[in-house]
Amino acid sequence: MISKQDLLSAHKNITPYVHNTPILHSSYIDSLAGCQIYFKCENFQKMGAFKMRGAINAIKHLTDEERQKGVVTHSSGNFAQAVALGAKVLGVKAYIVMPSNAPKVKKNAVLDYGGEVIDCEPTITAREAMAAKVQQEKGAAFLHPYNQNEVIAGQGTAAIELFKEIEDIEIILTPVGGGGLISGTALACHYFSPNIQVIGAEPENVDDAYRSLISGKIEINETTDTIADGLRTTLGDITFPIIQEHVKEILLVSEAEIKFAMKLIWERMKIIIEPSCAVPLAAVLRNESKFKNKKIGIILSGGNVDLTKFFDNL
Amino acid sequence: MISKQDLLSAHKNITPYVHNTPILHSSYIDSLAGCQIYFKCENFQKMGAFKMRGAINAIKHLTDEERQKGVVTHSSGNFAQAVALGAKVLGVKAYIVMPSNAPKVKKNAVLDYGGEVIDCEPTITAREAMAAKVQQEKGAAFLHPYNQNEVIAGQGTAAIELFKEIEDIEIILTPVGGGGLISGTALACHYFSPNIQVIGAEPENVDDAYRSLISGKIEINETTDTIADGLRTTLGDITFPIIQEHVKEILLVSEAEIKFAMKLIWERMKIIIEPSCAVPLAAVLRNESKFKNKKIGIILSGGNVDLTKFFDNL
Repeated sequence: MISKQDLLSAHKNITPYVHNTPILHSSYIDSLAGCQIYFKCENFQKMGAFKMRGAINAIKHLTDEERQKGVVTHSSGNFAQAVALGAKVLGVKAYIVMPSNAPKVKKNAVLDYGGEVIDCEPTITAREAMAAKVQQEKGAAFLHPYNQNEVIAGQGTAAIELFKEIEDIEIILTPVGGGGLISGTALACHYFSPNIQVIGAEPENVDDAYRSLISGKIEINETTDTIADGLRTTLGDITFPIIQEHVKEILLVSEAEIKFAMKLIWERMKIIIEPSCAVPLAAVLRNESKFKNKKIGIILSGGNVDLTKFFDNL
Repeated sequence: MISKQDLLSAHKNITPYVHNTPILHSSYIDSLAGCQIYFKCENFQKMGAFKMRGAINAIKHLTDEERQKGVVTHSSGNFAQAVALGAKVLGVKAYIVMPSNAPKVKKNAVLDYGGEVIDCEPTITAREAMAAKVQQEKGAAFLHPYNQNEVIAGQGTAAIELFKEIEDIEIILTPVGGGGLISGTALACHYFSPNIQVIGAEPENVDDAYRSLISGKIEINETTDTIADGLRTTLGDITFPIIQEHVKEILLVSEAEIKFAMKLIWERMKIIIEPSCAVPLAAVLRNESKFKNKKIGIILSGGNVDLTKFFDNL
């Protein structure tokens, strides 16, 4: 159980190490959507994503003895970079298990932050086995990208900053991947601002969370064919019950709707966001009547996009 | 002559109609450049560029009688959009003369802001002739994109906000196209913060301002082959003398350096800027020893980039 106190201490733990990211809004997007939308810009967060919050909080919870042995995670995405950078600023060794086919740019980012990259076969089984091996051999503490109380509490702090700064928000939307961000957000609202509804947004092509809420058990995705590469994972046994209890609903959007919303934010707000964090805006635009005239918060989860192709063709 | 009072009243004129844009900085870019850089984000300005400031100030200077007859300009760039939107918010009719081969996205932006687009042949002579015709037939007041006192004073207000918010800036850099931004910036520093050096940055491929400072007369560009499409114009007879008197020097950069600096800002700061406003950062990176440990301001002039290709290939 993650308590109110856990969230408060998470916020205290991370504050010296993360940005209180700006909250932006666009009158053009408001008029298009027919509501007021406040975007919490975690794309401006250190290492470019909200994952920094959970990583810092989890490392801060370790004992001095545990920290001396380092931390380990398996991820090819933002959590890999978050653990590498979080460990670095806290003076802890980080082992990052990454699939051998992970893009070089992602491996380099981890290396730049001082993490040690450990290659493994590109399957989830191989990843977990290699992480377990590092845990055993080095005595390193395992950090889960989303299914861990300290990580969830850390992710919830973005919502706390959002509803503290913008009064009377009625609804907060987040994307749903493994469920760390939305479960932290839902708990933050539950404890500190219970009038806020929390709604998840998910690509139709990886609608595991949507189906899980219907079936009452954790569903998996048969394919992972979505541009929103941060949302391909399935829920965990810690995040799922929190979502069941505290998230109002999960809305689905198409790939075309994700691209449209992403382009809208790039063009009109002049900020770079990942496809994953365009999913909530896509859901608002698709469900106009549901959100009509509401005051809405959206957590823009990250901004790490590979721009190589764009600049190569410039 | 643009006076101290002209700048103060320009700032008062425009404040209700423009954003006081945020000032961002990146510790990564600082460490790479070896100095402290504060970016004044005019890419977040209304219609996406600093040009809004000059357009509003110029329209505010018209008499009621003049305003009733409307305004006219010729531009296929940001000034076209600035006049269209500025006129709209001030309740004035705007005629925008645009070359017949201007990108559709630029014409549509002007139309979206309520401007009337008037096509002309794609030569500077045809543009000027058509604008003169509209002036004569409609009685509309002509607004020049840069070579006009009210426009220059308006552009200078971005620097005022920059050195008001960030203390002890030693150097401000801006890109140089027609010279409106840099001459306004130089006058603002001259009147209000005379210890600040103002330095221009220009692509090597369109180095007319650099050569003009050497020869003492307005030089033109033989080619306009640069990615920094906002900087292809040459100086005007009002901007040039101001630059001669108040700008310390103009630094040149290559096309590859512009692209590198632009990508750096996109990737690390997660904001979208036009190629033109990457030019000053490119100049800082190229001249490391000149800027070593200095406290620097850079005006990011705009963020209007055609993203169609990027999103089509996503």
